Amino acid sequence: MAAPRTVTLGLVQMSMVADPAKNLEAAGAAIVEAAGKGAQVIVLPELFRTLYFCLTQDTAQFDLAEKIPGPVTEALCPLAKELGVVIIAPVFERAAPGVYFNTAAVIDADGSYLGKYRKMHIPQDPGFEEKFYFTPGDLGFPVFETKFGKLGVLICWDQWYPEAARLMALGGAEILIYPTAIGWLPEEKAELGAAQHNAWQTVQRGHAVANGCYVVAVNRGGTEGETEFWGRSFVSDFYGQVVAEAGEAAGEIVTYTCDLKALEDFRRIWPFFRDRRIDAFDDLKKRIRD
Amino acid sequence: MAAPRTVTLGLVQMSMVADPAKNLEAAGAAIVEAAGKGAQVIVLPELFRTLYFCLTQDTAQFDLAEKIPGPVTEALCPLAKELGVVIIAPVFERAAPGVYFNTAAVIDADGSYLGKYRKMHIPQDPGFEEKFYFTPGDLGFPVFETKFGKLGVLICWDQWYPEAARLMALGGAEILIYPTAIGWLPEEKAELGAAQHNAWQTVQRGHAVANGCYVVAVNRGGTEGETEFWGRSFVSDFYGQVVAEAGEAAGEIVTYTCDLKALEDFRRIWPFFRDRRIDAFDDLKKRIRD
Repeated sequence: MAAPRTVTLGLVQMSMVADPAKNLEAAGAAIVEAAGKGAQVIVLPELFRTLYFCLTQDTAQFDLAEKIPGPVTEALCPLAKELGVVIIAPVFERAAPGVYFNTAAVIDADGSYLGKYRKMHIPQDPGFEEKFYFTPGDLGFPVFETKFGKLGVLICWDQWYPEAARLMALGGAEILIYPTAIGWLPEEKAELGAAQHNAWQTVQRGHAVANGCYVVAVNRGGTEGETEFWGRSFVSDFYGQVVAEAGEAAGEIVTYTCDLKALEDFRRIWPFFRDRRIDAFDDLKKRIRD
Repeated sequence: MAAPRTVTLGLVQMSMVADPAKNLEAAGAAIVEAAGKGAQVIVLPELFRTLYFCLTQDTAQFDLAEKIPGPVTEALCPLAKELGVVIIAPVFERAAPGVYFNTAAVIDADGSYLGKYRKMHIPQDPGFEEKFYFTPGDLGFPVFETKFGKLGVLICWDQWYPEAARLMALGGAEILIYPTAIGWLPEEKAELGAAQHNAWQTVQRGHAVANGCYVVAVNRGGTEGETEFWGRSFVSDFYGQVVAEAGEAAGEIVTYTCDLKALEDFRRIWPFFRDRRIDAFDDLKKRIRD
């Protein structure tokens, strides 16, 4: 079977404060701690520099956006090099006045900035007013080849879309990475909270199975406004098994060592990619078939 | 929110014998029993007329194939009409000498034959020698509008493909139906058996979430040759929750009442179809992106 190969993931679940500098400082400390635990690919939550400002629609919040590369890569590229780790750093990106993205910067273990992923699927519902803030991503679904493996970085709402996971896997990704900010609204939690969490975790575990990939989701914790971010960052293996998971606590660092040999063995036993009916997939580009 | 609407599913988990007439008789009795329990859409396992002949590659087994419509619809259409139920009847289809399909006939509650689905994704691995027997389906992904709802009927290996589930949902399906024949090989069961079952169930639960559909999988039970079919037929709701499940026993009838109002409410709260990036899905038609 395939040759032995591993990579250790570091999941930085954290809560944020109003001051972006303090969040960057806290993230840096968490990265050092995760690296100390052996993590090689370290993932921060969606929009880790700021509070989840999408609770309401407020033009003043655009002040929070920054260039990429910019302050975050200037701070984290040297840290990545010093520690020899890959860092996924999701921040609010200012492209131009009136054009902002929900983006993740990808930094390789030698400290080089590899590029960015701009969130392709943008939600819009009460308390998650993202279509107001974010232009839908315009860079497609790039796979980043890092020192420790080929990474498919997606963001939050993307996690519900099998197409996004599939495109990353078709591009060679072995690990699908979802920085996220998902939580409960008080009026829904009692009735639907457990089911919503189950749906969120299940759909991502399903992507892991369908694509023969590891999946890692890194959520924020803590309560902002009325929204209770539920933490529960996790890793799923390609059998859909939750192999590592954080609690609901605001801050927690989880590490997990992925077995990429076992991943290749899985794909040899169940070679799903071999049999895809690409001749019959035209209608996937339709909004609806009617 | 949406108007109340329900449909009751009947899952006929069964084991088969060598004589196709006896399997048809047993299926008929199970259909009567399921209808007696209130089932309105009754699903038989993949290739319910025969043993799972794909354990080996043997040209003599082509004698088992039959026309559709043919003997099975002649037997089950009157039964569907008498009971007022929809029946999904998967059989080995003979189209022409040398052209055979793994097919499911769909019969409406008034006894009319609505059409057929021919399995699109065909596996091939030791003990599941299906590429030897079955031409890949040539009818695409039709959705059948029955008295009790719009059904997306797929078969077994299709269950691993998010594209298949998505195309059915885009076509209006509210319930994805997977007749199947999946089991453990003795050399794998101890090490991988639990993980394989978990993967099988998880990927289908993921389809339910991603598409806002109910998913029902109906497996065979019993041991044939060395293959131990694992039963465990189940229903998942659109939150990915297993809401009904059979054991590993050879034969078992399970019923479950789906809440199609709750399904529409789910799609209103999480409107995944609204935000699909169909402008960026070209590469889904590639075998691999390189």
